[in-house]
Amino acid sequence: MAPILLNCAGKEDEDYIKPQLHVKNPHLDSMEEDILYHFSLGTKTHNLPEMFGDVKFVCVGGSGNRMRAFAKFMHQELGLPGNTDEITDICEGTDRYSMYKVGPVLSISHGMGVPSISIMLHEMIKLLHHAGCHDVNLFRLGTSGGVGISPGTVVITDKAVDCFFRPQFEQVILGKVIIRSTELDADLAEELSQYASEMPELPTVIGKTMCTSDFYEGQGRLDGALCSFSTEEKVEYLRKAYNAGVRNIEMESTVFAAMCHMCNLKAAVVCVTLLNRFDGDQISTPHEVLTEYQQRPQNLVAHFIKKRLGLIV
Amino acid sequence: MAPILLNCAGKEDEDYIKPQLHVKNPHLDSMEEDILYHFSLGTKTHNLPEMFGDVKFVCVGGSGNRMRAFAKFMHQELGLPGNTDEITDICEGTDRYSMYKVGPVLSISHGMGVPSISIMLHEMIKLLHHAGCHDVNLFRLGTSGGVGISPGTVVITDKAVDCFFRPQFEQVILGKVIIRSTELDADLAEELSQYASEMPELPTVIGKTMCTSDFYEGQGRLDGALCSFSTEEKVEYLRKAYNAGVRNIEMESTVFAAMCHMCNLKAAVVCVTLLNRFDGDQISTPHEVLTEYQQRPQNLVAHFIKKRLGLIV
Repeated sequence: MAPILLNCAGKEDEDYIKPQLHVKNPHLDSMEEDILYHFSLGTKTHNLPEMFGDVKFVCVGGSGNRMRAFAKFMHQELGLPGNTDEITDICEGTDRYSMYKVGPVLSISHGMGVPSISIMLHEMIKLLHHAGCHDVNLFRLGTSGGVGISPGTVVITDKAVDCFFRPQFEQVILGKVIIRSTELDADLAEELSQYASEMPELPTVIGKTMCTSDFYEGQGRLDGALCSFSTEEKVEYLRKAYNAGVRNIEMESTVFAAMCHMCNLKAAVVCVTLLNRFDGDQISTPHEVLTEYQQRPQNLVAHFIKKRLGLIV
Repeated sequence: MAPILLNCAGKEDEDYIKPQLHVKNPHLDSMEEDILYHFSLGTKTHNLPEMFGDVKFVCVGGSGNRMRAFAKFMHQELGLPGNTDEITDICEGTDRYSMYKVGPVLSISHGMGVPSISIMLHEMIKLLHHAGCHDVNLFRLGTSGGVGISPGTVVITDKAVDCFFRPQFEQVILGKVIIRSTELDADLAEELSQYASEMPELPTVIGKTMCTSDFYEGQGRLDGALCSFSTEEKVEYLRKAYNAGVRNIEMESTVFAAMCHMCNLKAAVVCVTLLNRFDGDQISTPHEVLTEYQQRPQNLVAHFIKKRLGLIV
């Protein structure tokens, strides 16, 4: 059989020819206009190919301030011309999300929790589609609670798991529960891990990341407005998580992994831990230490981007 | 049996004597300090009773800008002294949430989705507890998609239901699913409805509010990055929702109702509809019309607050 036929029939070969992201929605083609409401952008009001056509790296994180800081940091790291004060919020027409672009890097905030990041991902993936982007790598740069590891450790997510330690995401569609895989790109995680090993100031592990829909009861915290369990029961749950391979807990990774997987986007989750949950629940670390911790995933992903762009060898 | 014994034994009588909110967490008493991390406030760093002891109305909504606008609006409505430009964000140490206080009214943003509002509610309820507040009424002022009603209609929530139309919220605690009631305060909804009837410029209905964990697939939208269903299937789901009494769809009401119910907080959900989902999915209404729509729940709740404070009869 000739290679051309193999290419047409096989998904992997298709990807080899042009690795592109896929929106999975046949209705989009028939829409005259697409308003990305929560970005305050649209296909008729903005020239999305011109604005975003060269994007190769999308970095997302919870806080708008943090993602603005990351954009400024990347501007310096990439040696781009101009003043970092000129980097403005592309989504200034709304306060739902913030978005900054520096060269081929797009930095977007997603708020907290699965529903919040999911709205952003739908609109970001459509944005990349409308802009004709391809070969895009996506990173979530987050903060998290550590499970049995020292505060400040960076966790590169091996598998995103739910609160029952299952590598899956439950999406409800029209009142029916659909199970989606939370598989992340193994090569990307491996490459990040390799770069991390070259950065001795960056304590890094690969592990499972547990995604919960609640910060207090859902993560076994004893310090919420509601708590119905004992310290011992909390510790037992964390121990079970640890034994299942979980090294950190956050609130977005499963839907992030699931949607990227569905849309053929190579994606990685890189979160720093702010505390070791076996030692406590409250985040009482001094502000300047937390700020330095939050810089760590940014440093690793900046290193990755510079390697990919050939700025360092 | 003497009344005093009845009061000690019966929850209802206890509430009658001093209607106060209850944190339901025995661990809180033994904590030396409580850091409300996502507010950037704490019991050791801030005098919470002095800052918040007089709060009687807490109004929450998704967008920080909208909740700042509401605070300025309430400042004017209550005829408070000083310039509205002096109303500053109490949570300026973080960008997770925004918080403004004008007289007895606290206005707080909660971001989008159940996890995001749930973190805010835990910390807000603890804040009210630490500040010694009592007799507090809580309102969610939101935007939503309408189901079979005209855009701009204000829906006062009768019952918050999940995507299967059940009046319940599933909370996962240490890997176990707990079902919580989403009962809201019927008297508060009735009182709001009565005031709305006195405001002819405010089209209002009482109905069920469906809370989903996703804006696109979860609400049957055809315009997300992913969509696997037909227009007919979407309409069938919306029709089922309408027949079950659902009049609008948003993303926070079930956990809001459940947590307020657990903590003995009288709470109401008042959302304006931005579109009728039977007519479409995209929010293409002009900005100025949307701004006027978003003012409507604020007008109703402002009217309520002024009635309660005896500023209007």
